[in-house]
Amino acid sequence: MTTVELPTYADVEAAAKRIEGHANRTPVQTSRTLNELVGAEVFFKCENFQRMGAFKFRGAFNALSKFSPEQRQAGVVAFSSGNHAQGIALSARILGMPATIIMPHDAPAAKVAATKGYGANVVVYDRYTEDREAIGRRLAQEQGLTLIPPYDHPDVLAGQGTAAKELFEEVGALDSLYVPLGGGGLLSGTALSTRALAPRCALYGVEPEAGNDGQQSFRRGEIVHIDTPKTIADGAQTQHLGAYTFEIIKRDVDDVLTASDAELVQAMKFFASRMKMIVEPTGCLGLAAVLRTKDALKGKRVGVMISGGNIDLDRFCSLVSAE
Amino acid sequence: MTTVELPTYADVEAAAKRIEGHANRTPVQTSRTLNELVGAEVFFKCENFQRMGAFKFRGAFNALSKFSPEQRQAGVVAFSSGNHAQGIALSARILGMPATIIMPHDAPAAKVAATKGYGANVVVYDRYTEDREAIGRRLAQEQGLTLIPPYDHPDVLAGQGTAAKELFEEVGALDSLYVPLGGGGLLSGTALSTRALAPRCALYGVEPEAGNDGQQSFRRGEIVHIDTPKTIADGAQTQHLGAYTFEIIKRDVDDVLTASDAELVQAMKFFASRMKMIVEPTGCLGLAAVLRTKDALKGKRVGVMISGGNIDLDRFCSLVSAE
Repeated sequence: MTTVELPTYADVEAAAKRIEGHANRTPVQTSRTLNELVGAEVFFKCENFQRMGAFKFRGAFNALSKFSPEQRQAGVVAFSSGNHAQGIALSARILGMPATIIMPHDAPAAKVAATKGYGANVVVYDRYTEDREAIGRRLAQEQGLTLIPPYDHPDVLAGQGTAAKELFEEVGALDSLYVPLGGGGLLSGTALSTRALAPRCALYGVEPEAGNDGQQSFRRGEIVHIDTPKTIADGAQTQHLGAYTFEIIKRDVDDVLTASDAELVQAMKFFASRMKMIVEPTGCLGLAAVLRTKDALKGKRVGVMISGGNIDLDRFCSLVSAE
Repeated sequence: MTTVELPTYADVEAAAKRIEGHANRTPVQTSRTLNELVGAEVFFKCENFQRMGAFKFRGAFNALSKFSPEQRQAGVVAFSSGNHAQGIALSARILGMPATIIMPHDAPAAKVAATKGYGANVVVYDRYTEDREAIGRRLAQEQGLTLIPPYDHPDVLAGQGTAAKELFEEVGALDSLYVPLGGGGLLSGTALSTRALAPRCALYGVEPEAGNDGQQSFRRGEIVHIDTPKTIADGAQTQHLGAYTFEIIKRDVDDVLTASDAELVQAMKFFASRMKMIVEPTGCLGLAAVLRTKDALKGKRVGVMISGGNIDLDRFCSLVSAE
């Protein structure tokens, strides 16, 4: 078992100072229709309105802000085909350091273009024959780059915790809070803020049903590995929690719930038609869980993290129009 | 020529007090991508996040709040197939008064259902053989109902002015402000707030190119009537300005601009893909005009009113996927 020194809420507070003026302080939205339906007061923290469209910017910027002058000069390397890539690329541009992003050769052209658009150097690999982590380690060693992983890093997860900090500051304590769960960066960061600012709030991670490694890990008390799950929630297609994120989740989270792809589509439609927001499938996990467990929420004050809104419009339309 | 006593900014202030706690104080959103593209700082007042999805709730609620006890008891009547119907129906429900809404027999089922869902009595008419205004007047006379028109009413337009009041309170003075223009309720109300709070701000109405009666009226100095224009901006398919709205627009507005349907679709795509918001075509008029006139906006602070987000998801998807 790995022993790690866990970050604390003080690290979230320090991250909040670092990202101030760079990250958006995203709005908290509500829907009276939903409140009537659930019989509760539900507050959505809208990280789909964050820079580059997802909470990932917070952790990436926090991590890169802490680089030493030598690290800044050499630059950062990250592997990701998703929001982490863009979070790192944008943060590196703002901080004036080189960034290398390792992306699969079949990554969507739009995502490659967006990452290059932020000035990053994109290295492609064949996802069937090559190991991206090995490529990352090699580049880090050969070129002196600092590797920033997508979730299992104290500075990354502390940065993610700033979203919940803002939520509690805006709406006060909550009875329960629902958070999308992939590798656990957002959930563990949120846990640090929740235990500090709303200690009695019930905190739930929500995973895609097809990839419930987090639920299994939480219930067994050890990290469970699974094959890449088949789900529309591409931000939560992780195969296992991290050493840091799991320890915090095990300690601070009340339970891990799941949502089916069909429930995610229903939530996506609700966000679009009633709240006029585009939310990516992973960002719908929290609302899906609220709708599934609504009978237990009557009269409560409930928070929901919307993790991001990055989805191709064509893909969005094909998901919400299929029936 | 009709002589009318025009409302003033004091009426907007009184409206703001009446709607407080009932209307949402909608967020102001920005996009760094757009700011870089335009070379300006652009602030979007997001009335797509208003109750029932459009600014119309403000004016409707303000007008109904001013009813005498006798008027409240008898109730309100309105004719509309769009956002005004829902604004009136919802306001009447909140204020506990009966509402009758006159809708065309071929109005979308979803809109009829939404209006009935707010508890309104829906009267249908045949839009090819019957005159909805005559039906409204008859119901008003026979049943003692008070008719609230969609835009040409001092309490309605004063209520609409509260959105710009909030915008200026949040972001301070602006160099220019772009506002969708249909019958002129939002533009004239905005004009009252603009001249009071940011007197040197250039104020523009923006109409669909196919229905530029407002532009013609503004430039000729008299109200021009046109046939119902063919445009995707269904909230701006009005045939003429009103007596109140025209007088204020003539006095306080700097110019009336236009946008083509193709430009509206481009703006709708930008809102969805970059800002993660669903905006109805009429709500895209302001951004379309900003993009068309961007060379004149370098270094400026620019406001844009997003009027609403009420569009069927299927319709939205067919518009953003067509090429």
